[in-house]
Amino acid sequence: MTANRSTSDGLHEATLSEALGPRAARTRQGGRTISVGIVGATGYAGGELVRLLLNHPRVRLAGLHGRNRDNVPIADSHPHLSATGLVIDQAIPEADAIFTALPHGVAAGMAAAIVARGSALLDVGPDFRLHDPADYPRWYKFDHPAPELLAEAVYGLPELHRDEMRAAAERQATVIGLPGCYPTATILTLAPLARAGLIGDLAVDAKSGVSGAGREPKADLLFSEVNESVKAYGIFTHRHTAEMEQELKEQGERGSLGSRDANPGVATVDFLPHLIPMTRGILASCHVRPTRPVTQAELDALYAEAYRDEPFVQVVANPPATKHVYGSNMCRVWCRVDPRTGRVLALGVIDNLVKGAAGQAVQALNVLFGLPETTGLEQYPIAP
Amino acid sequence: MTANRSTSDGLHEATLSEALGPRAARTRQGGRTISVGIVGATGYAGGELVRLLLNHPRVRLAGLHGRNRDNVPIADSHPHLSATGLVIDQAIPEADAIFTALPHGVAAGMAAAIVARGSALLDVGPDFRLHDPADYPRWYKFDHPAPELLAEAVYGLPELHRDEMRAAAERQATVIGLPGCYPTATILTLAPLARAGLIGDLAVDAKSGVSGAGREPKADLLFSEVNESVKAYGIFTHRHTAEMEQELKEQGERGSLGSRDANPGVATVDFLPHLIPMTRGILASCHVRPTRPVTQAELDALYAEAYRDEPFVQVVANPPATKHVYGSNMCRVWCRVDPRTGRVLALGVIDNLVKGAAGQAVQALNVLFGLPETTGLEQYPIAP
Amino acid sequence: MTANRSTSDGLHEATLSEALGPRAARTRQGGRTISVGIVGATGYAGGELVRLLLNHPRVRLAGLHGRNRDNVPIADSHPHLSATGLVIDQAIPEADAIFTALPHGVAAGMAAAIVARGSALLDVGPDFRLHDPADYPRWYKFDHPAPELLAEAVYGLPELHRDEMRAAAERQATVIGLPGCYPTATILTLAPLARAGLIGDLAVDAKSGVSGAGREPKADLLFSEVNESVKAYGIFTHRHTAEMEQELKEQGERGSLGSRDANPGVATVDFLPHLIPMTRGILASCHVRPTRPVTQAELDALYAEAYRDEPFVQVVANPPATKHVYGSNMCRVWCRVDPRTGRVLALGVIDNLVKGAAGQAVQALNVLFGLPETTGLEQYPIAP
Amino acid sequence: MTANRSTSDGLHEATLSEALGPRAARTRQGGRTISVGIVGATGYAGGELVRLLLNHPRVRLAGLHGRNRDNVPIADSHPHLSATGLVIDQAIPEADAIFTALPHGVAAGMAAAIVARGSALLDVGPDFRLHDPADYPRWYKFDHPAPELLAEAVYGLPELHRDEMRAAAERQATVIGLPGCYPTATILTLAPLARAGLIGDLAVDAKSGVSGAGREPKADLLFSEVNESVKAYGIFTHRHTAEMEQELKEQGERGSLGSRDANPGVATVDFLPHLIPMTRGILASCHVRPTRPVTQAELDALYAEAYRDEPFVQVVANPPATKHVYGSNMCRVWCRVDPRTGRVLALGVIDNLVKGAAGQAVQALNVLFGLPETTGLEQYPIAP
Repeated sequence: MTANRSTSDGLHEATLSEALGPRAARTRQGGRTISVGIVGATGYAGGELVRLLLNHPRVRLAGLHGRNRDNVPIADSHPHLSATGLVIDQAIPEADAIFTALPHGVAAGMAAAIVARGSALLDVGPDFRLHDPADYPRWYKFDHPAPELLAEAVYGLPELHRDEMRAAAERQATVIGLPGCYPTATILTLAPLARAGLIGDLAVDAKSGVSGAGREPKADLLFSEVNESVKAYGIFTHRHTAEMEQELKEQGERGSLGSRDANPGVATVDFLPHLIPMTRGILASCHVRPTRPVTQAELDALYAEAYRDEPFVQVVANPPATKHVYGSNMCRVWCRVDPRTGRVLALGVIDNLVKGAAGQAVQALNVLFGLPETTGLEQYPIAP
Repeated sequence: MTANRSTSDGLHEATLSEALGPRAARTRQGGRTISVGIVGATGYAGGELVRLLLNHPRVRLAGLHGRNRDNVPIADSHPHLSATGLVIDQAIPEADAIFTALPHGVAAGMAAAIVARGSALLDVGPDFRLHDPADYPRWYKFDHPAPELLAEAVYGLPELHRDEMRAAAERQATVIGLPGCYPTATILTLAPLARAGLIGDLAVDAKSGVSGAGREPKADLLFSEVNESVKAYGIFTHRHTAEMEQELKEQGERGSLGSRDANPGVATVDFLPHLIPMTRGILASCHVRPTRPVTQAELDALYAEAYRDEPFVQVVANPPATKHVYGSNMCRVWCRVDPRTGRVLALGVIDNLVKGAAGQAVQALNVLFGLPETTGLEQYPIAP
Repeated sequence: MTANRSTSDGLHEATLSEALGPRAARTRQGGRTISVGIVGATGYAGGELVRLLLNHPRVRLAGLHGRNRDNVPIADSHPHLSATGLVIDQAIPEADAIFTALPHGVAAGMAAAIVARGSALLDVGPDFRLHDPADYPRWYKFDHPAPELLAEAVYGLPELHRDEMRAAAERQATVIGLPGCYPTATILTLAPLARAGLIGDLAVDAKSGVSGAGREPKADLLFSEVNESVKAYGIFTHRHTAEMEQELKEQGERGSLGSRDANPGVATVDFLPHLIPMTRGILASCHVRPTRPVTQAELDALYAEAYRDEPFVQVVANPPATKHVYGSNMCRVWCRVDPRTGRVLALGVIDNLVKGAAGQAVQALNVLFGLPETTGLEQYPIAP
Repeated sequence: MTANRSTSDGLHEATLSEALGPRAARTRQGGRTISVGIVGATGYAGGELVRLLLNHPRVRLAGLHGRNRDNVPIADSHPHLSATGLVIDQAIPEADAIFTALPHGVAAGMAAAIVARGSALLDVGPDFRLHDPADYPRWYKFDHPAPELLAEAVYGLPELHRDEMRAAAERQATVIGLPGCYPTATILTLAPLARAGLIGDLAVDAKSGVSGAGREPKADLLFSEVNESVKAYGIFTHRHTAEMEQELKEQGERGSLGSRDANPGVATVDFLPHLIPMTRGILASCHVRPTRPVTQAELDALYAEAYRDEPFVQVVANPPATKHVYGSNMCRVWCRVDPRTGRVLALGVIDNLVKGAAGQAVQALNVLFGLPETTGLEQYPIAP
């Protein structure tokens, strides 16, 4: 593992002087190494970013930030990564790209300073996902401190916004709001239906592993509370609802060339997340009453067309289980019409910490820096 | 535990001669002991029946049947019950009441012989749940061998059919088709809405522990396959759908005095069960688009009215988790209208092996024999 | 469940005036109800005490204490018990018997006041387990504040100290130090060998469910940390070691009539506990190098003799699993000599929250008050 | 993932004619691709081999064998690998190296034919682990059909037998008996102590995830049986005991230059494996009574010396958890003397399917073919 091992000595070697300037850095990467910093490296998403980036052939870790840490070995936060020899600091790293994995509201406050240094900002948190600034007080209970950056931010789901992301890489301020875990699974599962204007009534019933709730010690996340139990939570108020509505509505508008009437069903999403006794994985079960009768052949064509060239979305023949994507950046989707009732069921699975967080962030990095999207993400799922 | 301990010697003491005849036995139980046999005692439901009946102050176990067994200690099937000293035999016990817990189609074939001996038959399996004989070839792929008994059978959900069950106890042939686990959770969760004609579009997204799948060794039920994974199964074809549609339709008709038009939404149920990595418990998440706008006060009144006097249905203030009912015969239900979208969400939890199988069977026994319904079922849930 | 339901109004009815005085209360219980209070009712052991005592035919709950609580519904701490209608208060209940389930050092500070009111004190915590006051600073890092009470305290493992417990019930100050969960499993598993002087070298390798660690939110008890992992903890320093050494040594001395030389091996226990991904249950795997060659027949005789009349210790023919005792007060033990190596292996399982905590406390209550030991503890294990 | 994707067309391209002959192939691999076949690819170890080999830059999969399969997509056995497009056949692949992952006795029967074709044989099963042919009838209940190959086989634990493995690569018949999962963890954990003659009495108490038991559907491996339970199994008779005794004895002899008396303790191992409710991972807790008093400094020196240059053995400062190595080829070991008792505790963890099976097999392949041992095994553990 020595090839990938970064020493603590090397962590702060990255300087802006070695870069050709951020814009060029992001677009004309010949064989150059991309320096990357992680702000908020002590959480689960931060740990996954480290794991994935250490296997990325073009990335050099320029620094790992953790609140109130001063040269603390990574083993304190991530014992499984102790062999890396990395350390965590409270300094914000200087790098070509900065990943922020922080509680909501924190990255928004740091963003201006980060982009001013020429770094591309890829926020794993929610601070740059919602286009309408009014959605932040509404769903997240804070006023967005950087609405001008928000206006430039791109929703970082490559399968839907690849071109916008590439365009953002050319800008002075590159800000990517990476999707939430539930929206990633849900939007990829429903986008073909949304674009076709087929979603009438919609209930998204999602099941998640516990790691999505983070690693703050909370009583209801204790093993003894979660094990042998299932419950719904965030009922009617889960913040990811806003993202789903934003994106599904936009897909509907794209599909119908802007005619909102063509796709009235996606105005609101009936989203219900559940906590189940597992660590990783999300299954989004999407119950759709279609706007008109559909055939299976039609559905098959829609999904094949949508994802034919996507390396990380697999349209599968059998209902997917979260175990089929564990540890990988894959999303598997499956869609069927019930011949008895005419309703449509669409299922999608991801690993919430990979395609739902760190893996998608690396995929977005690859888009911004002109690399093949699969770079560093080639690992197959691990099972059983 | 000696008080409850049955010895193998005592297992076959029960004879018809000691009974006053089945009809009287079921209706005028002064302090008399009810003799009970279990056919198919080696499965999970059978084991739970033994566990519960050993704590039932009015029941004497008259015999435990298992295929191809001859005086085999119960420890072979249920090591946790080895202290009972019970044995399992291939003889069908003679008793006041016989519980059958068998693969579909088997109890139907035995039923005539059992009721001919004067025993009340309580089938934990599906053979007497569906009123329309045509539903058996349609959903279960067999022709019902005893349609005349099926015509007399009562759907054994006491909260909905208590009076019919009591009436059945007076008949010569008493046959109770005990509800499936998913239908129990779903119907109790939705009955107040169904009776009020409020269910428009309906998606029932259910999550179950693995014990509901029985204990036949199947590759996809292995620990390594189920653990750290969630998947949907039985998509569009799960047999419990038929029960839900039968009962919800009937509740709708009751509520609207027979006018089917008043409640068109429940014609079909979009039912999707999931297997999650836990052993016991079902959560039914019922996504309802109401037939008209409703207020929370209206919903609260409907549920309070429906379940005020029910000892085993608790209308709760917080969203229920399956852990809240583990090991008990309780069902917890919760219903809310989403003020943002106007949709209604109803949640219900049970322990699939207790209220979803063995506990409900004991509750039904209590109804048939005129005992307080809670007899032998007073145990509180066990947590964590 | 109404029979057992205590209303909040009734919680404080118990007064000393209604008692005949503590000594008589504990020894001449005709059919009288025993009033019981729980101090520290919000933890897992407290919840189990409530669950078990509500099924105890001779007990009335006189009050539930929780720090900084004022008439708070029990559902806040124990949602599964919400149907009881009980409340939690910060007052110390007055009652015939007080169970304390508190962090170490706290019950010791309260004990004098509790026994001064004539209540029998049954401490589920460790404050009265160790006979030598010097063991408290050594193992628990506090000086015992009530050494005179400690001197009168009895180690509350009925299978070993039943007579001493009965004698304690006659005293003015009745104090029972209930055993820890690991010691319960280990001592019951090894006592027959210890008494026979057979334990030479001893390694106790124990595996515990997570509930034994309590419900304080700690990062390393989060589901995502515990799931899919096993680790040893408390290495060389686990406080339960002191109890095991105290009791095994005493058993050895009993067996050899005080000759310490006869049983040198139990001077120290090589105790290693592990945290495994389950909620309840302890398996103690005891690796013994015997002091002399033994035969299986000799071992069988020792165990049969030791536990023939014990309702809660079952000497089993097959290696026990923790699932075999889940939710019950049973301990299962199994002991074999390896014909190849001559070593002896003894295995024991309990439910750490029942026989390892709350159930054993109720068993001790029954001993003190002259009731059959199984009263209120008749429930069979629940499986799967 | 296209770079790694093998098509079914390419699967049988490998022919002996393209090889330079087995001996040279194994020793002078310039940049040449190694063709590899897997016999028994449908089990868990087989699936892991595929996952790892697809990430191996120098390996080409020449064929996957499964009994009674004829061009069956890999998704039937390993849904998580469906994106590979691989198929499984009943033909034995021709390749530079053949991995066999089969029930005991099967690979031994095939071995002669495989090596006759010039393939190196790496058996993941037990057929070539034990040097003494008499151990096969004794522990495995079959007579070894190829004792002459067994005589040439090397025990494939690179950390102990790297040089012998390299020598075997030069032979006409190259046969590697890859270690079992428990022995891998145990031997690596204890080798430094064994070589130093420090192991007096020894109890190895091991805990394993369920995947080690394979994927044959057995009742006691069902989720509902394993979940929330722990049990010992294979008591006194587990076949891996033979390997541990063989290797620890040999290490002792090496350390003492052949004097058996110097290290009498390791003559027999008191080995006790446990099944715990997780999928992957083994923790070996090794309780050692040392042959003489030792200091921690001495132990630290022994372990540092033994594993200083080993890429896959990490001597750690804190007690290891299996989660720290999940999905990786790492083994973590930790060793301490108890200052109170003088006993020594050594702990070791591995992922049973990686370092305990497929990963170790790939490491052995790298040794045989002169590649850096970490090739294809650089992935860090995945957590949480």
